[in-house]
Amino acid sequence: MSQTAEIGVSGLATMGRNLARNLARHGHAVALHNRTDKRTKDLAENFSDEGTFVPTYSAEEFVQALEKPRRIILMVPAGKATDAVIDEFVPLLEQGDVIIDAGNAHYADTRRREKALSEKGLNFVGMGVSGGEEGALNGPSIMPGGPKEAYDSLGPLLEDISAKVDGEPCCTHIGADGAGHFVKMVHNGIEYADMQLIAEAYDLLRKGLGMDPAAIAETFTAWNRGRLDSYLIEITSEVLAHADAETGKPFVDVVADEAEQKGTGRWTVQAALDLGVPVTGIAEATFARSLSGNRTLRDAAKDLPGVSGARLEGAAAEGFADDIEQALYASKIVAYAQGFNEIQAGAEEYGWDIDLGKVASIWRGGCIIRAKFLEEITAAYEREPGLTTLLTDQAFAEAIGGAQDSWRRVVASAAQLGIPTPGFSSALAYYDGIRADRLPAALVQGQRDFFGAHTYRRTDREGTFHTAWATDDRAESEA
Amino acid sequence: MSQTAEIGVSGLATMGRNLARNLARHGHAVALHNRTDKRTKDLAENFSDEGTFVPTYSAEEFVQALEKPRRIILMVPAGKATDAVIDEFVPLLEQGDVIIDAGNAHYADTRRREKALSEKGLNFVGMGVSGGEEGALNGPSIMPGGPKEAYDSLGPLLEDISAKVDGEPCCTHIGADGAGHFVKMVHNGIEYADMQLIAEAYDLLRKGLGMDPAAIAETFTAWNRGRLDSYLIEITSEVLAHADAETGKPFVDVVADEAEQKGTGRWTVQAALDLGVPVTGIAEATFARSLSGNRTLRDAAKDLPGVSGARLEGAAAEGFADDIEQALYASKIVAYAQGFNEIQAGAEEYGWDIDLGKVASIWRGGCIIRAKFLEEITAAYEREPGLTTLLTDQAFAEAIGGAQDSWRRVVASAAQLGIPTPGFSSALAYYDGIRADRLPAALVQGQRDFFGAHTYRRTDREGTFHTAWATDDRAESEA
Repeated sequence: MSQTAEIGVSGLATMGRNLARNLARHGHAVALHNRTDKRTKDLAENFSDEGTFVPTYSAEEFVQALEKPRRIILMVPAGKATDAVIDEFVPLLEQGDVIIDAGNAHYADTRRREKALSEKGLNFVGMGVSGGEEGALNGPSIMPGGPKEAYDSLGPLLEDISAKVDGEPCCTHIGADGAGHFVKMVHNGIEYADMQLIAEAYDLLRKGLGMDPAAIAETFTAWNRGRLDSYLIEITSEVLAHADAETGKPFVDVVADEAEQKGTGRWTVQAALDLGVPVTGIAEATFARSLSGNRTLRDAAKDLPGVSGARLEGAAAEGFADDIEQALYASKIVAYAQGFNEIQAGAEEYGWDIDLGKVASIWRGGCIIRAKFLEEITAAYEREPGLTTLLTDQAFAEAIGGAQDSWRRVVASAAQLGIPTPGFSSALAYYDGIRADRLPAALVQGQRDFFGAHTYRRTDREGTFHTAWATDDRAESEA
Repeated sequence: MSQTAEIGVSGLATMGRNLARNLARHGHAVALHNRTDKRTKDLAENFSDEGTFVPTYSAEEFVQALEKPRRIILMVPAGKATDAVIDEFVPLLEQGDVIIDAGNAHYADTRRREKALSEKGLNFVGMGVSGGEEGALNGPSIMPGGPKEAYDSLGPLLEDISAKVDGEPCCTHIGADGAGHFVKMVHNGIEYADMQLIAEAYDLLRKGLGMDPAAIAETFTAWNRGRLDSYLIEITSEVLAHADAETGKPFVDVVADEAEQKGTGRWTVQAALDLGVPVTGIAEATFARSLSGNRTLRDAAKDLPGVSGARLEGAAAEGFADDIEQALYASKIVAYAQGFNEIQAGAEEYGWDIDLGKVASIWRGGCIIRAKFLEEITAAYEREPGLTTLLTDQAFAEAIGGAQDSWRRVVASAAQLGIPTPGFSSALAYYDGIRADRLPAALVQGQRDFFGAHTYRRTDREGTFHTAWATDDRAESEA
């Protein structure tokens, strides 16, 4: 059994098991290892017709079963469990072996681990895998970081099992050390924002126009034939069209309207704050989930004064569904622009050489945010690799130019109707903020100089200045 | 010189020097210590008429100069510098001595330090101090955490030097270990939100109504006579009324409109994300600062399509300034409600017994957000100490009830006029979100169950469910 497996997977819960099966189905012999033996045995026995599995029942046996340089995929819970498994394997490995962490690690942990293992001569690859259980089995979007050399040997295998779009694998080397997990994190943050925007569009159609879920499902189906064509819009339609078997009511009406935020969505916002990149769409989406899940707060607030009998009717309702589609598309561009700016800022901060167009390209298949729209993003970065923001790409700027009247109408109507649209509103505020000739931040700087002598800069000459606010003449001096 | 000083201050840059002078002016003999000798000498020589200073020139000498149990205030940069000074003093101290970190430490560091020092029998007090240099000298708002016993001996001295409002000191024991620095952090986050809202109000008056800064200064002065009466509104008026000596232009027009975000504002949002508390007002304010400071982004985006010649005129302009005052007040209530909810959540998470009404009360003087409004908050928590959100307090609910038509009009107009109001809009979205009977989070839960088998709960019975979306019958099962 020695050195008979091309690659190994340790951690055989659903995600790990599906990745192992995906590898086996593609003709790669896979060594299996798990903390407890049962999962290893079950997998090797039940899926032996799919390919070659090499079940092993100790770390030593697992390592011995692998060809050199060894390639070990870890699919274990992020955090201490990952460190524990790494610590177990390291003494058994040799120079040039590769450990691939395919879990949802924080990129800072990945950077730490990569540094520690590279000092021991081992290659460590932090790898984002998107697409859930189904993707892991049939082709996920794969975002590996780590050393370029590790990708040279590992890449063909990963590209083999990844999703394909137009024949291209949804897998590329993202960048050094934590780049893969960073990009996967932002992917999830964008997913939060995208889902929130869709939810707001639904809410506006429902409450603002009084449409029922079945009719809204049809609207989404129609939208899915246009520029919004995407997996998330498609399943939104499916979910809305579904009737609860038990009550006959629309499924969406029997589901508790309480979501949770955790992990990568939250990390995306926290990292953006450290990097100084405004990702208001992701932040509002993350907070909207927390808000929805705070039953105590909602119960306390449910009778607060609002707007009564609010719904658009007659001429005001005319064309409003189309306005919502426009607002959704414009807000979506903003959310993605913010996310890509975070990746750009991360790349600058950590010295990663990330090809943003390629990132958009490998998200076209396998993952939750897969969409036609991503081709536009790739095209934008191909036209101008150093693009400051997606919003100024000609195609997107034109789309927003065409959408903005509708977008403004939707945000204004939502405010008047009492329908919460934190995603749409913050996207519009961001758009109006970045294009503003002057921002009231000048006043903020004046206040800060007044109360804390924080100094300010001037518009008309270089330097840093302070005004003697406490004195009668309020003289300005160079600080 | 042995044991002649009641308290010591180590770290004599402006904040430390002013705190030392404040102590001396109140009749407390203060031992002085600094990394370099010059500051110690200068302070002792130049301000000897203000009280008793005991200059010392080594850690040993400093410690010997203090009465027992010793009380040492550190006013050094947060982070490694603080750890270094603590490490220097610890071997020289005895059981029961008190180290007070008055810097801007992160509460997690304070918790770590408190734990480490309490194991050595020392008392460690993480203490938030607000009010800048002027406050430190003439009376800051003081937020000490740490062990209750430490406050018993330290409190009278701190209360002595704090700001006073209606004869009450702006200082109270906040809670154990990191509670003081946590509350100071949220205070700063609220300050960010408050300043952003004021900036938006100014921007709307300027761009939406075409008022000039001098006229807007008068509007703020008028507002300052009402329920918005506060230090920030007062200085806004001063800043807007000021003319640049060099150019004669309004000061606010010669100041660069680029702010920065760092430190405590950012930490407040990051902590809120960990705690699952939506603080959208603070997040939008923090991101608005980042956005304003991103010159590259703004230069790239400055020609994006917008709204041309947008300004309210005639009947539409009528009463709009009053609408803005209403929107500002309502949004401010939301920002404070969110901030107090974060303190509440922090207290639950870390087991701090924080009196929220008292917190509002000690912010009435000495600090940047001092305002009449805080009395309303104290009153609200006195009426109902377990209040879930300030928004349901009768006085605030009534104020918002009266303000909401204006608030909606302002948010809607800003969207139509192309004026960015992330603070006003997100506050309104939050308000409409918490009071909503149903939120579209139900759709989000449906989507998550569809693509990731994340399960959902139902509105009509207990349990966790999953729908077999991939099958024809889409049967529901208990998960």
